[in-house]
Amino acid sequence: MENFNKKIKKVCKMKNNRLCLGLDIDNSKLKNNSLDYMQSFIFDIIDATIDLCPIYKINFAFYEKHGSRGYNMLEKISEKFDQNTVTIADAKRGDIGNSSKYYAESIFEHFNFDSITVSPYMGYDSILPFTLRKDRGVFILCLTSNSGSADIQNLISDNAYVYEHVVNIALKLNSLNNVGLVVGATKVDNLSLLKSKTDQLPWLMPGVGFQGGDLKKSLEIGEYNDKGTSIINVSRGILCFESKNDNYGSITSIRNATEKFTSQIREIV
Amino acid sequence: MENFNKKIKKVCKMKNNRLCLGLDIDNSKLKNNSLDYMQSFIFDIIDATIDLCPIYKINFAFYEKHGSRGYNMLEKISEKFDQNTVTIADAKRGDIGNSSKYYAESIFEHFNFDSITVSPYMGYDSILPFTLRKDRGVFILCLTSNSGSADIQNLISDNAYVYEHVVNIALKLNSLNNVGLVVGATKVDNLSLLKSKTDQLPWLMPGVGFQGGDLKKSLEIGEYNDKGTSIINVSRGILCFESKNDNYGSITSIRNATEKFTSQIREIV
Repeated sequence: MENFNKKIKKVCKMKNNRLCLGLDIDNSKLKNNSLDYMQSFIFDIIDATIDLCPIYKINFAFYEKHGSRGYNMLEKISEKFDQNTVTIADAKRGDIGNSSKYYAESIFEHFNFDSITVSPYMGYDSILPFTLRKDRGVFILCLTSNSGSADIQNLISDNAYVYEHVVNIALKLNSLNNVGLVVGATKVDNLSLLKSKTDQLPWLMPGVGFQGGDLKKSLEIGEYNDKGTSIINVSRGILCFESKNDNYGSITSIRNATEKFTSQIREIV
Repeated sequence: MENFNKKIKKVCKMKNNRLCLGLDIDNSKLKNNSLDYMQSFIFDIIDATIDLCPIYKINFAFYEKHGSRGYNMLEKISEKFDQNTVTIADAKRGDIGNSSKYYAESIFEHFNFDSITVSPYMGYDSILPFTLRKDRGVFILCLTSNSGSADIQNLISDNAYVYEHVVNIALKLNSLNNVGLVVGATKVDNLSLLKSKTDQLPWLMPGVGFQGGDLKKSLEIGEYNDKGTSIINVSRGILCFESKNDNYGSITSIRNATEKFTSQIREIV
């Protein structure tokens, strides 16, 4: 059984890609808003992209709003992926004691995702339960792509940003080589120094596409020292490619957008 | 339609109590570990305590580990409560943009909880979507009861702890009088000054009971200036009352423990 961070490198190398496709589907924007249609649309997207795309991120908010039926869909979606793909449960959990342990059980055992995103606000012991299986990974929110990220993350304490303190927690937790960071691609100016401090930790980088993040800079920074791999998450930039009014495109257009981002990534790395 | 923070005061006054019962049920510790039995046990607990207990907190981790069936149980549990009770979805959510909006829809519309706990790490805009309905509330993690709380929350920036910066975000978000804070009862030494700065915000205080928090001090501090109400959360201290090995007690013992905590609270406030 290999360490999670090695598996990321392996699948990225195998598919010669760094793309993470975010399956953020709002059923109210589909031509048929039934949950059955939503599920079949998501299955079609996976089928149309999985030969190119090494990593998929599923933001739980889009499913939880449908309650138990949405969670039932998550159970089915996670079964769609094969061993040559890494899945990220973008659930941003964070709790203490037994609660964190149960969330880890939920995501890694019940839903069978390869990894999860977590918030670091409650500290080291709140993240530890997610790091105990070397084949399952955790991406810790570090420097996020939204405007409010400045409120807490950019505070300075002991000559370091709060998000740098988060890096220290992440490095301490990485003894099984299964910890990564969430670093927004919109924050490119801050990233070079940060990358030098995070050494071999992989970065999950949202923000390319609709949020304006720079793909080339994000990939280049992510390759610093050829250690931690940077994974480029794109959601709407692919799902809504060539469509108007932020609606989802056809499966063909989603395939085309995946090819386009894949080509761009292959040119750079 | 009344503001959430007024509703807390109302139900606490009506039941002459400040107790929040945490329905943290681990089915593996029940004599019958089926989910049907877990649900009927929870229903019995509610029936046996709702005349005394104004507030119930449901930690989603205990349900999410059962996947969609656990979420189905949450849907049924939330239907059990009447208008004279406040429910807290202890889900510790925190995301941005549409994701936060969908989580708010999930908790307030689909699951019909009165309030939610959220993490502040992603900043102001990540919490805003939870504050838009005045009859629904949000408790922001501020100073938590676990040891790792020191890692981020106790960092000092601009002569203030990070958790004090969180208070400032909370105060800015409270224009509809529906924002509160999570403040661990184990942190009593830090609380007097903090209370003076949080003015009318209610506090949800976990940590009394098994975690060693001081009930009397927590209640007294919570009453500073008779503004924000302090709500005392007890989970295992009631659920496992008079039982051995951290197992759940009988419904009778849970009733007895609820009476005991209620009496203690009434003596103090």
